[in-house]
Amino acid sequence: MSPDATSNRQPGFGDVAHLGHIELLTPHFEESLTFFLNVIGLHASGRSGDSVYLRAWADYERFTLQLTRSHTSGLGHVAFRVRSASVLQQMVANLHAHQVAGEWRPAELGHGPAFRFFSPDRHAIELYYETERFHGTGELAPGYKNMPQRYIPSGIAPKRLDHLNLLAQDIRACRLFFRDLLGLRVTEQIVFDGNNEMGAWLAATNKSYDIAFTRDHSSAHGRFHHLTYMMDSREDVLRAADILTERGIAIETGPHKHSIGQTFFLYFYEPGGNRIEIGSGGYLILDPDWQPVVWSREERQRGQAWGLATVSTFHTYGTPPTED
Amino acid sequence: MSPDATSNRQPGFGDVAHLGHIELLTPHFEESLTFFLNVIGLHASGRSGDSVYLRAWADYERFTLQLTRSHTSGLGHVAFRVRSASVLQQMVANLHAHQVAGEWRPAELGHGPAFRFFSPDRHAIELYYETERFHGTGELAPGYKNMPQRYIPSGIAPKRLDHLNLLAQDIRACRLFFRDLLGLRVTEQIVFDGNNEMGAWLAATNKSYDIAFTRDHSSAHGRFHHLTYMMDSREDVLRAADILTERGIAIETGPHKHSIGQTFFLYFYEPGGNRIEIGSGGYLILDPDWQPVVWSREERQRGQAWGLATVSTFHTYGTPPTED
Amino acid sequence: MSPDATSNRQPGFGDVAHLGHIELLTPHFEESLTFFLNVIGLHASGRSGDSVYLRAWADYERFTLQLTRSHTSGLGHVAFRVRSASVLQQMVANLHAHQVAGEWRPAELGHGPAFRFFSPDRHAIELYYETERFHGTGELAPGYKNMPQRYIPSGIAPKRLDHLNLLAQDIRACRLFFRDLLGLRVTEQIVFDGNNEMGAWLAATNKSYDIAFTRDHSSAHGRFHHLTYMMDSREDVLRAADILTERGIAIETGPHKHSIGQTFFLYFYEPGGNRIEIGSGGYLILDPDWQPVVWSREERQRGQAWGLATVSTFHTYGTPPTED
Amino acid sequence: MSPDATSNRQPGFGDVAHLGHIELLTPHFEESLTFFLNVIGLHASGRSGDSVYLRAWADYERFTLQLTRSHTSGLGHVAFRVRSASVLQQMVANLHAHQVAGEWRPAELGHGPAFRFFSPDRHAIELYYETERFHGTGELAPGYKNMPQRYIPSGIAPKRLDHLNLLAQDIRACRLFFRDLLGLRVTEQIVFDGNNEMGAWLAATNKSYDIAFTRDHSSAHGRFHHLTYMMDSREDVLRAADILTERGIAIETGPHKHSIGQTFFLYFYEPGGNRIEIGSGGYLILDPDWQPVVWSREERQRGQAWGLATVSTFHTYGTPPTED
Repeated sequence: MSPDATSNRQPGFGDVAHLGHIELLTPHFEESLTFFLNVIGLHASGRSGDSVYLRAWADYERFTLQLTRSHTSGLGHVAFRVRSASVLQQMVANLHAHQVAGEWRPAELGHGPAFRFFSPDRHAIELYYETERFHGTGELAPGYKNMPQRYIPSGIAPKRLDHLNLLAQDIRACRLFFRDLLGLRVTEQIVFDGNNEMGAWLAATNKSYDIAFTRDHSSAHGRFHHLTYMMDSREDVLRAADILTERGIAIETGPHKHSIGQTFFLYFYEPGGNRIEIGSGGYLILDPDWQPVVWSREERQRGQAWGLATVSTFHTYGTPPTED
Repeated sequence: MSPDATSNRQPGFGDVAHLGHIELLTPHFEESLTFFLNVIGLHASGRSGDSVYLRAWADYERFTLQLTRSHTSGLGHVAFRVRSASVLQQMVANLHAHQVAGEWRPAELGHGPAFRFFSPDRHAIELYYETERFHGTGELAPGYKNMPQRYIPSGIAPKRLDHLNLLAQDIRACRLFFRDLLGLRVTEQIVFDGNNEMGAWLAATNKSYDIAFTRDHSSAHGRFHHLTYMMDSREDVLRAADILTERGIAIETGPHKHSIGQTFFLYFYEPGGNRIEIGSGGYLILDPDWQPVVWSREERQRGQAWGLATVSTFHTYGTPPTED
Repeated sequence: MSPDATSNRQPGFGDVAHLGHIELLTPHFEESLTFFLNVIGLHASGRSGDSVYLRAWADYERFTLQLTRSHTSGLGHVAFRVRSASVLQQMVANLHAHQVAGEWRPAELGHGPAFRFFSPDRHAIELYYETERFHGTGELAPGYKNMPQRYIPSGIAPKRLDHLNLLAQDIRACRLFFRDLLGLRVTEQIVFDGNNEMGAWLAATNKSYDIAFTRDHSSAHGRFHHLTYMMDSREDVLRAADILTERGIAIETGPHKHSIGQTFFLYFYEPGGNRIEIGSGGYLILDPDWQPVVWSREERQRGQAWGLATVSTFHTYGTPPTED
Repeated sequence: MSPDATSNRQPGFGDVAHLGHIELLTPHFEESLTFFLNVIGLHASGRSGDSVYLRAWADYERFTLQLTRSHTSGLGHVAFRVRSASVLQQMVANLHAHQVAGEWRPAELGHGPAFRFFSPDRHAIELYYETERFHGTGELAPGYKNMPQRYIPSGIAPKRLDHLNLLAQDIRACRLFFRDLLGLRVTEQIVFDGNNEMGAWLAATNKSYDIAFTRDHSSAHGRFHHLTYMMDSREDVLRAADILTERGIAIETGPHKHSIGQTFFLYFYEPGGNRIEIGSGGYLILDPDWQPVVWSREERQRGQAWGLATVSTFHTYGTPPTED
C-alpha cells in the first residue's frame, strides 16, 4: 500500500491500540532503579546503554518503563502501540500530511521501528507496531496460562502500566492533536469559565483514559506530571500506602478517589523526582459515541471525589522542575 | 453508501461496540421481577407488553435486561450495539452476503431499529445502533457527573451488565460466526483432545470476554447458560454471597476465581430458573494481535483457579431445562 | 454482699465488659432519625418518650444508640455494660468510696438498673449489667445462627457500635478516672512537651480502644467529639464515602488511616450536628501488660498515618457547639 | 501467696490472656522452614537446638511458631500466656488440685518458666507468663510506633497468629478442661443428635475463638488439625490463594467463609504435612454472658457459610497421619 493512498485515511478510535511504554529520566539512576525494583516491585527485563527496562507482572510486552540515567528528571519519550503495521504507515503518512515533523527510528530492545515526533507541547512521542511479548520462565513462569508471568508478591507489585499525565501550555492543541491525528477518544475535560481548557483526558481503549494533559503553571514545555501503575483492588492501593509510609516515602496526596475517571489514587515521588501514581478501578466506556464530560472551575474547587482538597504541588510540580 | 459497496467490507474488531441487553424469559414473572429489583438491586426503567426493562446503576443505556413473562425460561434474545449506523448497514449487508437470514425490526423501547437473526445454535441475536441514554433524575440524579445515575445502596447493586454465556452444540460454528461475521476477538478456548471444541470466549471490547459459548450436553438448541452483572470489587461479590445466603437463595458455586478470564464469580438461579452470575475483576486485553489461550481437558480437570471442582450442574443445567 | 465488703476490691481490666450505648441529643430529631435509618442504615428497635432506640445489624443488645429530641446537640449519656451483677455492685461501692457522686436509675427500655455519675469533665456515664438481647424475627431473622439478625443491605449498614470520643479539659483526670475506677486499659496517649496530655485512648476489651478523650480547645465541659460504627472492611468504608457524597453529605475528613489505633476512618456530621465516624480495622491487644503508646507533638504534626493533615475542625468542633 | 490459698480461686475468663505459640514438628525441616519464610512470609527470630523460631510481623512476642525437626509431623506443644505471675501460680495450683499431672520447665528462648501438662487427648500444653517482647530494628524497625515491626511485603505476610485446632476423641472432656481449668469461654459447638459432641470452639479473648477441638475419626490421640495466621482483609486471603496456586501448592479448601466464627478461610499443607489456615475476619464477642451457639448435624450438612461442601480430608486428615 503506498503512503500516498493511505494518507487519505483519517485515524479512528482503536488505531492506536494502547499506551506502550514510557521512558523516564532520572538524575539519581541507581536510587531510582532500586526503588522501582524493591519498593514498587517492577521486574527488570533488559539493559541497554544508559537504560534499564522494566515491566509490571501482567504487562504483556517486554517492557513498559525505560528508566534512563540523565542529568535531569522528566519524560524521555512516550510510545504508543498502533494496531497494525499498515495502520502505522497510514498514521505516519497522515502526520506528514499535517506537517508534523518526525523521523523513523530503527528497531531497538523490545520493539520494532518507531516513528518519533513531538506533541504540541514538545513531548517526544513514538508510534510502533512490532513488539516483543514477554513469556516468563523459571521463577517467573506463569501459574495461569492467560498471564505473561506469575505474580511475585514483593513490594507494591502493580499489575500493569495504565496511563500517563503530561503538563502542557496549550491543552486544546494537545487534545485536538491526540484526537484528530492519533484517533484517541476525548473522555473528560476541565474547562474554566467556558473556554479556558485546563485539562483533557483521552483514551485509546475502553478505559476512561490512557493519557491526560493538564495545564503547566510554569512557562516550561514538555514536562511530565506522572505515570500510573495499576492494582487490581483499592485494598492493594491502601497496602501500597503502608509500604511507602513505613519506608519513609512521603505520600504527596491520597489514597483518595478521583472524580475524573473515578479511579482510586495515591501519589509520591521516586528518588529521581518524578511523580508516580499507584491506582485502581475507574470505569469502562462502552458507548462508541461517548461525549466528553466537562468539569467547570466551580466543580473542581470542590476537590476530589470525597472532598479532599487538591494538593497545591499537584498544580505546580512537574519534572524537570522549573524556577518559575 | 450503497449496500452493495459496503457488503465488501469485512467486519473488524470494534465494529460491534458492546453487549447491549439481554431478554430473559421467565415462567414466574412476578417473583423474578421482585428478585431482580429487591435482591439484585437493579432499577426498573420501562414497561411494555409482557416485559419490564431493567438496568444496573452504571449502565449507560435505558436498559440492559428485558425481563419477559413467558411459559418457559431461557433467552428471548441478546442484542449488541454496533459502533455506527453505517457499520450496522455494512454488517447486515455482509450477513446477507453470507446467507444469514434475518429481518429488521422497528424501533422499540430504548433503542432504534434492530436486525434480528440467529446464531448457528438458533439463539436470537439483534444488532442495533440508535439507543436511548439514561440520565438519572430526582433520587437517581448522579452524584458524579461521569455516571448516568447515583449508586443506590440497596441489595447487591451491581455496577453494569458484563457478559452472557450461551450453550451450543457446535462451538466452532458459533465461534467463527461471531469472529468472522461480527468481528469479535476470540480470547480463550477449551479444546479437548486437540480438536474437540468445548467452549469459546469472545470479546467486542478490551475486556477478556463479552460473550461465551459452552457445549450443551443435551441435544437442545438455543439454550441459555448465564448472564453476568459486575461489581467493582471482590469484596462486593463476597457481600453478595451473604445477601443471597441470608435470603435462603442457594449459591450454585463460588465465590471463587475463574482460570478463564481471571474473573471472580458467584452463581445462583433467579426464581424463573435462569442462572445469574455476580462477578468482578478479570484482565484487559491491550494487544491487538491477541492469540486465543487454549485450555486442554487436563488443564480443565484441575478445576477453577484455586482448585474448586467445577460443579456438575454447570455442565448440565441450562434454560429452558431439557429432559435429556 | 455488703457494700463495705465489696468496696475493697479494686476494679480490674474486664470488669467493664464493653461500651453499651450512647444517647445522642439532636435539635433536628426527624432529620437525624431519617438519616440514621436511611443513610447510615441502623435499625429502630424501640421508641419511648423523646427517644428512638437504634442498633446496627450485629449489635447483640436491644440498642446501641438512643437518639433523643432536644434543644441542642451533644451527648445525653454513655453507658457501659459491667461483666456481672456483683461486679457492678462492687464498682459502685468503690465509686462511692472515692467520693464519686451518682444515683441509681430504674430499669428502662433495653436494660436493667443503671448507676449514673459524671466524668471529671461532666459527661453523664452509666453502668449497668442486666440487658435485653436482640433476636431478629421475620425479615430480620438471622441467616447465620451466631448473629443476632440478618445483614440488611440498605444504606451504609455498619456492623456494630465501636467506640466514642469525648472532649475534655483535663485529659489526665479522665484517663485516671477510667483506668482506676472503671478498670479500663490505657492503650495510647498524646502528650505534648513531656507532660501536657492532649488525648487518651482506653479499652475495656481486646480492641485498641472503646473510649477516647481529646482536649477541648474551648472552655466548655461535657462535650462530645464523635461516635463510631464499624464496618467489616475498608472497602465498606470507601463504599460509605460514595453513599455520603452522592447524598450531598460533606465528609469532614477521610477516608484515611489513623496512626493511633491503626483504624481506617471517615467522619461527617449527622443532621443534628453531631460528628459520626464510620471505621474499620485496627489492631487487637493481646498482651495483658500492654504499655501505653505515647505520641509527641512532633509525631502528631506529621498528620495521620499516610500524611493527611488533621483537619482543623477536628480540633475545634464538638457538640454542643460553643462560642469560644 | 501460698499455693494452698491460691488453689481455691477458680480460673475465670481472662486468666489465660491469649494463645502464645505453637511448636510444630516436621519431618522435612528445611523445606518447611523455607516455606514458612518465603511463601508464608514469617520472620525468623531465633534458633535453638532442633528448632527455628518464627513470628508474623504484628506478633508482639519473640515468636509464635516454633518449627522443630522431627521424625514425624504434628504438634510439639501449644503454649498460652497467663495474665499475671500470680494467676499462673493459682492456675497451676488448681490443676494440681484437680489431679492434672504436669511439670515446670525452665525459661527458654523467648519466655520464662512454663508449666507443661496434657490435654484429655494428650496434647502437650504449656502455660507461661514471663515473655520477651519483639522490637524490630534496622530493616524491621516499625514505621508505626504501636506495631512491633514494620510490615514487610514479601510472600503472604500474615499479620498475627490467631488460633489452632486440635483433633480429639472426647470433645466434651477437652471442652470442659479448657473451660473449667483454664477459664476459656465456650463460644460455639457442634453437637450431633443432641448429645454427641463433634466440635468445640473456645476463646481466651474477645475473638470468637483461640482454640478449637474437633473429633478425630481415627483412634489416635494428640493429633493436630491446623493452625491459623490472620490477615487484615479478605482481599489478602484471596491474594494468598494466588500466591499458593502459582507456586503449585494445592489448596485443600477455600477461600470460603466459615459459618462457625464467620471467618474467611483458606487451607493448605506445609511441606511437613501439617495443615495451615490463612484467615481473616470473624466476629468479636462483647457479651460477658455469651451462650455457646450449638450447630446440629443437619445444620452442618448444609456445608460452609455459602454452601461449599466440607472437604472429606477435613474430617480425616490430621498430623501425624494414621493408618486408620
